Amino acid sequence: MINQKNMQLGKVRSVIRELFEYGKKRKAEIGEEKVYDFSLGNPSVPAPKEVNEALVELIQNSNPVFLHGYTSAQGDASVRGAISDYINLRFATSLCADNIYLTCGAAASLTITLNALLNEGDEVITFAPFFPEYKVFVEHAGGKLIAVQGEEATFQIDLQKLQNAITAKTKAVIINSPNNPSGVVYSEKTIKNLCQALNDYAKKFNTEIYLISDEPYRELVFDKNVKVPYVMNYYKNSVVCYSYSKALSLPGERIGYIAVNNQMQNWQDVYAAICGAGRALGYVCAPNLFQQLIKKVIDKTADVSIYKNNRDILVSALTEYGYTVVKPDGAFYLFVKALEDDADAFCERAKKHELLIVSGNSFGTPGYVRISYCVDTEMIKNSLPAFKALAESYKA
Amino acid sequence: MINQKNMQLGKVRSVIRELFEYGKKRKAEIGEEKVYDFSLGNPSVPAPKEVNEALVELIQNSNPVFLHGYTSAQGDASVRGAISDYINLRFATSLCADNIYLTCGAAASLTITLNALLNEGDEVITFAPFFPEYKVFVEHAGGKLIAVQGEEATFQIDLQKLQNAITAKTKAVIINSPNNPSGVVYSEKTIKNLCQALNDYAKKFNTEIYLISDEPYRELVFDKNVKVPYVMNYYKNSVVCYSYSKALSLPGERIGYIAVNNQMQNWQDVYAAICGAGRALGYVCAPNLFQQLIKKVIDKTADVSIYKNNRDILVSALTEYGYTVVKPDGAFYLFVKALEDDADAFCERAKKHELLIVSGNSFGTPGYVRISYCVDTEMIKNSLPAFKALAESYKA
Repeated sequence: MINQKNMQLGKVRSVIRELFEYGKKRKAEIGEEKVYDFSLGNPSVPAPKEVNEALVELIQNSNPVFLHGYTSAQGDASVRGAISDYINLRFATSLCADNIYLTCGAAASLTITLNALLNEGDEVITFAPFFPEYKVFVEHAGGKLIAVQGEEATFQIDLQKLQNAITAKTKAVIINSPNNPSGVVYSEKTIKNLCQALNDYAKKFNTEIYLISDEPYRELVFDKNVKVPYVMNYYKNSVVCYSYSKALSLPGERIGYIAVNNQMQNWQDVYAAICGAGRALGYVCAPNLFQQLIKKVIDKTADVSIYKNNRDILVSALTEYGYTVVKPDGAFYLFVKALEDDADAFCERAKKHELLIVSGNSFGTPGYVRISYCVDTEMIKNSLPAFKALAESYKA
Repeated sequence: MINQKNMQLGKVRSVIRELFEYGKKRKAEIGEEKVYDFSLGNPSVPAPKEVNEALVELIQNSNPVFLHGYTSAQGDASVRGAISDYINLRFATSLCADNIYLTCGAAASLTITLNALLNEGDEVITFAPFFPEYKVFVEHAGGKLIAVQGEEATFQIDLQKLQNAITAKTKAVIINSPNNPSGVVYSEKTIKNLCQALNDYAKKFNTEIYLISDEPYRELVFDKNVKVPYVMNYYKNSVVCYSYSKALSLPGERIGYIAVNNQMQNWQDVYAAICGAGRALGYVCAPNLFQQLIKKVIDKTADVSIYKNNRDILVSALTEYGYTVVKPDGAFYLFVKALEDDADAFCERAKKHELLIVSGNSFGTPGYVRISYCVDTEMIKNSLPAFKALAESYKA
């Protein structure tokens, strides 16, 4: 018998993927422009032009044996140095190249970190709504995911609920801010309270609790006055899992990193465990061409103003039509209260208006839906009458 | 406590890496050209020129949102189709796109396949000498690696020893031909005997035994009359783990695939388990730029004649000096009998002649050493007096 758990994982399509496939079929039936597909989180803004320029320059002017060759498992030292320098510049940390481990994107950053930290039976806390793959990643690493509901209406961390969830088995807490699916950014107050609680309970249970900050959406923030606190400045036992997928619109190229806080007492051990976990999972190194690229475009970001514009159009229209919307400060998702208790039923009704939106049940928060607005602005404008009609269908 | 097993894995450098680091230090001391470093398996031949041409063409003429965007987890359907067509053309199989799963290289192909197939406690057989990471990969997937010594002198499979090793717990057998570290190519007779044994024992134990063919060196074969049998033509329950790292000299870019034999009774289940395992390990998709590249250069190979020339120089000189050499038909490794029983001691003595070669103990076959000849031909020529002096030091 082959591995049944992995077979089931491979057979059961995620709800999001299922909806996306439905959308493809529906578009073929009634026409591309008549289906409003808000299902996927695939960046719609192209990579900044400097990305392709730098790629061509690297390919044309580098020694190919070096450019396409193995790097050390943790990544090219000069690339790691450029990343630690850039983090230090932005967040007043004091990291060095040896705190950075380059990865094949955010999912790899998380699986490697979890396999480095967890022992069989350990618990990992996260906050709902949350990215559903967290459960898959934590379970593969031998752990158990504990989801704690965020505060109603704001989706900041509910401190009381967090405190109730921490046990002697809590090995790590995953946060994701800006958040998929809510778009919420955790305030400095939220982060401070979280870190205080983790310190208190680590002391109480005489253990270490690691804070894993999953940050693929860090650069996708729409207002200058919104700050995304850098966890290393608040908590010693912290690890940042970063990805360039959304920041540079390179989701298919798989490039990101893990940064281990050098203020952590045993950071060398954690870094070694990350190297070991990467080895055991089969990650030989991150793609070298994209490693070298990062060094050249480290301060570039895809044009976020397009996402901001999309957000503004949707938030304003949906509010006008009577929807309850948590205005997102970042990422490219809108988390909206369903107009009936059963979000699945609401999503089915939305389909009748050719609106493809994802039920919050997938993200551990019932009664809400996720709208991905990393789509063409024209499609959003064209979809508004459908959102209006959907709302009106509940008023009858 | 963090994960101790992964921490140890990360802390203990492999013998090969250790030697390579020693080499760097030694070169700084006495000069680059005075150290003969045969430690690493890093291709020294550049990628064929069509690779960089195709990369630039893709970057300059594709829609960047598509080119750098997510593909489905198993890889772009058109790329998978091109690969299955090409396999069918070469090996008279009847695969389709849905038998192919694109990966981040050979290590990922193996870890994903092993996590798809194994349950806790399952046994996986391989043949010594073998690539030492097999043990790491099998153990992470919950299995136990059983190494069976190859035949003395030829390193073909010793059928009797194999039969003694198969148990009711044997879930899979990994073969690697052309082989790292011996360079040996399994003959058709070897493959037929192996498959017969696997069929017999699977029947005897009323179980399935999967044959995993790890093929990063398939294209690195030096003589037209040497054929590398394609396992799908001999065994139904077979999975091919392929990588373009060596074939196209792209080891740092991480691109390869898993091909699941469509003659396998439950191939859809195995394929689903591969998709699930890829998900659980954090592999979102293989790098898209390199996926698209493969479609354009599918029939290209790095210039193997350089490796052949290196092999010929070394085999002829070492034989002349009195070494016992298994003449390799492929890959870029030479497996040579140490001139004393203790291969570790022999490698230490080689160091005194500035020769950096790897003890066979690392590969599960004591008494031999591995010489990687994916190096500059001039260095090989310059190293010959050192090999001669080393041999003579044993004759005194």
